[in-house]
Amino acid sequence: MEVCVLGAGSWGTAVAHLIAQGGIPVRLWCRREEQARLIGASGRNPHYLKGLLLHQDVRGTANLEEALAGTERVILAVPTQSVRPLLESLPPSAGPKRWLNLAKGLEIATGDLVHRVVASLRPKDPYSVLSGPSHAEEVALGLPTAVVAASRDLEEARAWQDLLNGPRFRVYTGEDVVGTEAGGALKNVVAVAAGIARAMGLGDNALAALATRGLAEMTRVAVRLGADPLTLSGLAGVGDLLATCYSLHSRNLRLGLAVGAGKTLEEARAELGQVAEGAFTVQAVVRHGERLGLDLPIAWGVHRVLFEGASPRLLMEDLLSRDPKPERPEASPL
Amino acid sequence: MEVCVLGAGSWGTAVAHLIAQGGIPVRLWCRREEQARLIGASGRNPHYLKGLLLHQDVRGTANLEEALAGTERVILAVPTQSVRPLLESLPPSAGPKRWLNLAKGLEIATGDLVHRVVASLRPKDPYSVLSGPSHAEEVALGLPTAVVAASRDLEEARAWQDLLNGPRFRVYTGEDVVGTEAGGALKNVVAVAAGIARAMGLGDNALAALATRGLAEMTRVAVRLGADPLTLSGLAGVGDLLATCYSLHSRNLRLGLAVGAGKTLEEARAELGQVAEGAFTVQAVVRHGERLGLDLPIAWGVHRVLFEGASPRLLMEDLLSRDPKPERPEASPL
Repeated sequence: MEVCVLGAGSWGTAVAHLIAQGGIPVRLWCRREEQARLIGASGRNPHYLKGLLLHQDVRGTANLEEALAGTERVILAVPTQSVRPLLESLPPSAGPKRWLNLAKGLEIATGDLVHRVVASLRPKDPYSVLSGPSHAEEVALGLPTAVVAASRDLEEARAWQDLLNGPRFRVYTGEDVVGTEAGGALKNVVAVAAGIARAMGLGDNALAALATRGLAEMTRVAVRLGADPLTLSGLAGVGDLLATCYSLHSRNLRLGLAVGAGKTLEEARAELGQVAEGAFTVQAVVRHGERLGLDLPIAWGVHRVLFEGASPRLLMEDLLSRDPKPERPEASPL
Repeated sequence: MEVCVLGAGSWGTAVAHLIAQGGIPVRLWCRREEQARLIGASGRNPHYLKGLLLHQDVRGTANLEEALAGTERVILAVPTQSVRPLLESLPPSAGPKRWLNLAKGLEIATGDLVHRVVASLRPKDPYSVLSGPSHAEEVALGLPTAVVAASRDLEEARAWQDLLNGPRFRVYTGEDVVGTEAGGALKNVVAVAAGIARAMGLGDNALAALATRGLAEMTRVAVRLGADPLTLSGLAGVGDLLATCYSLHSRNLRLGLAVGAGKTLEEARAELGQVAEGAFTVQAVVRHGERLGLDLPIAWGVHRVLFEGASPRLLMEDLLSRDPKPERPEASPL
């Protein structure tokens, strides 16, 4: 057996390395020929996790047909907005696959989570998602990490669990694909807000209140999309939210820190060098959240700061001055 | 109207100041005569929040009878283990009161939350609790903070809300006294574990996983005590957990950092200068949790490190090596 990982960013690279460490050869598909060549020559990814000497059974390739030939299990590790064009570009020879998605976001055009994008193009292929608090930098260092593999077919999730689980990378299983994907996608928006609050020096009390309100907002959206609300209390919800709101590994947090300090979105992007997924997901959330009649003050606030030139100060004052209402996570706005 | 605050630690002092700022005179009862005298002479609490110049309507007194005379509303701001002896020492002249509890813990002897301790001694007095992410140091600085006042009688919670609410101190109301108190008490144990994990350099992924498992463990205990599980997803559960696991203002986190770095409980106590509530609450949790047949790996681990000389390293390895099970917050151990 061989596994194919599509996408050689930080997380795709770390997961490819993990699988190879477990004794299974991996083909790591890179968008650019140069990147694949350098991986072959140096055993390192030139752009991501440069410090990691990849396991010898990780083989880089920029040829999609070659990457997929004869592999049944394929891991999607490209940004959310790239999932559809990538799947549409698959060679007809590819045949049926078993997918594991690592992308955390909502497609802007449709407002869909990744499982819906994949189902629209590959309706018969078994599908799973991997999510939870898992900064690639720490996984690459062998630091302990716990995640969830979810699939409507629990046997499928267990197969991925067997493939990925190790002494320092604990894979739990679940059946709530919607909740698992929604948690991973929506937490990025809250992390941008957390970064803004931090940049403004609002303190640990306010940051905790904001993250809690963010969790309530995430849960409202997720439940509306069909999630089990309990999933949002687990690793793929609270867990990922914490790892994102409270870690400088998070690009979304750093985006918020930059705009909270007065930078424009363009300036923040230039500073980060990469694009934070939250800046895309928030567009999908506000566009489709309004249609669904959901109260989403944090997502709207982040959208106003990133795309409408609103002052971070006004945003936070608006959020913090909302009238207190009875404390019920499903009902109370920030 | 006047309000009495019993206990002049950091949180009692900050809340007394808040109420006085809102235009209501406060009598701040201090255990020691010297402390009351210095508050009168300098307008500052000599031991806690020394930088805060107290509002002129905060009056310190060490005379319990004088503190309580003619006041209907009394705020309990002593450590959890001191609530029962304090209430037993009230002068017979005190008469009926309306209580608001600030203490977050379980009584070791009974395993009871504070509302049960108060109910056993003052069964007819209306009772409320205030909880949520609220480091006194930040409230004293006027940084934004959101908390919950909960009472079985919502009108009672609303009366405290009216008394405490301000532009930077947002008070929500709730009816789940058990859940609100359980969240505040149990999070201290998780914070000690979080400190241990941090001291060991386990990383942000592991810390987020630990806090998530801690939330599941808190929820199991709280539900068993009669809480609504949703309360644990709100400010008094997740919110307070975050403010405690991720803030160096937290004495419980600092206790964990010290023992995680190899110090004994006694050495850590000497270093902190104060006792962290989690060291008491964990004793009540393991003693009564076992009787209730609850699976509490984090509380047991913290207990072993603090009181049984276990190595923090062994504790964390044990927690992280438990077999992954299907990811359901109610079922999955760390």
